[in-house]
Amino acid sequence: MPVSREEAIKLYGWQALPVEPKLKKWLGDKKFVKEPVPQLCADVTLPDTPVVKACLEYAQAELPPHTFNHSMRVFYYGMAMRTQQFPEWEFTAETWLLTCLFHDIGTVDKHTHGTLLSFEFFGGYLALDVIQRNSGPVEQAESVAEAIIRHQDSAEVGTITTIGLLIQIATQFEDNMGFRSELIHPGTIEDVTMAYPRRNWSSCFSAKIREENAVKEWAHSTALGFDEFPDSVKNNKLMEPYDTKF
Amino acid sequence: MPVSREEAIKLYGWQALPVEPKLKKWLGDKKFVKEPVPQLCADVTLPDTPVVKACLEYAQAELPPHTFNHSMRVFYYGMAMRTQQFPEWEFTAETWLLTCLFHDIGTVDKHTHGTLLSFEFFGGYLALDVIQRNSGPVEQAESVAEAIIRHQDSAEVGTITTIGLLIQIATQFEDNMGFRSELIHPGTIEDVTMAYPRRNWSSCFSAKIREENAVKEWAHSTALGFDEFPDSVKNNKLMEPYDTKF
Repeated sequence: MPVSREEAIKLYGWQALPVEPKLKKWLGDKKFVKEPVPQLCADVTLPDTPVVKACLEYAQAELPPHTFNHSMRVFYYGMAMRTQQFPEWEFTAETWLLTCLFHDIGTVDKHTHGTLLSFEFFGGYLALDVIQRNSGPVEQAESVAEAIIRHQDSAEVGTITTIGLLIQIATQFEDNMGFRSELIHPGTIEDVTMAYPRRNWSSCFSAKIREENAVKEWAHSTALGFDEFPDSVKNNKLMEPYDTKF
Repeated sequence: MPVSREEAIKLYGWQALPVEPKLKKWLGDKKFVKEPVPQLCADVTLPDTPVVKACLEYAQAELPPHTFNHSMRVFYYGMAMRTQQFPEWEFTAETWLLTCLFHDIGTVDKHTHGTLLSFEFFGGYLALDVIQRNSGPVEQAESVAEAIIRHQDSAEVGTITTIGLLIQIATQFEDNMGFRSELIHPGTIEDVTMAYPRRNWSSCFSAKIREENAVKEWAHSTALGFDEFPDSVKNNKLMEPYDTKF
């Protein structure tokens, strides 16, 4: 059943937030809005609508295990951030899960070597297509695409969608740079990494970024620093205790 | 006839260049590489391959006259910049023309109100589709899409495709901020604006940016400054003498 534009904006996480990736607006000098408590995977109901089932199946088939696990960890960390720190941020868990499942689809080997597009742009367009083919509404598919296209955007001026900002901070926190480590309780990290082990994610993803930039010398990933970005991913101290678990 | 990846990179303008939108690398403190001379529209052979004919027809049908004229001016200014200042930059005139024709397709009123995607991302996606439907090779369609997606990218670190950098500087120069006005001879501007009059482009496009940001509060255009960007477009001193011609 089609929804109004206003409803679509809320449901699918379109509401504009300032880009401020350092979260100055909500956190200022504070480390968190509310002191985090453990939020286990079991505390979160995984969406199971037809579109999610189809896209989960798609992601599991297409993504290598370490990337699939990464995508699920980002989902749970994002849910913990929203629930505990930013409860006013509006989006359905379904939309957030789809964003997580597709955000690194462009890094699959056959796509790294198959498309000339920067992986974020290819991934956004793939998500737009696959979600709609599985009966996801266009407003939802577009929200996921918009977020994926911008998920490595270094802009510090202007606005971005809610889902767009969350995928940036959740990936920066969890899997990439240990950003704002105080937002999430260590008990949450323990549980999520047990459910979805990292499988050497830090070195795998660092290598993938270098591969992207080598195969596509024009890649948008270079905007985060040709060496700085893959180095910071590889040297993720926060997740180091968990990184070699399979 | 399919081309190799290496050939495709040259033909379709994929070669990586440093983003440096202030062109420090090539210009340093100099105002130009080679003192510009007039380059008239008549001096440039407009491509007329089947894919160009189809896309020109599409653009003429879809774009309002002031946006179509803008797109053609950007084409001629970009050709002048490449020919006279950056002859080592490799791409076919066909690929450049397609990029120009589609770069603002997302600003058409029905799309501003039809899609929730930022106009650059919608436009890139549309270009990818329309070019291939008219038998343009995927490597070319992707180059056009990549450039359009990034054409308002404010990154000052990393690399970008050749076509991507040219669409940034040609739009900044010509129609938006009079950037690097010394790169192009006034005689070129006279001729191009006579062939493709501005029709109050400065105020039209300024209004369109404000509309984009109002209708889509999360729009990527906000990354260029919510007021600064539309104000600088409106107050384009370089093009002021030509702006009211129809």
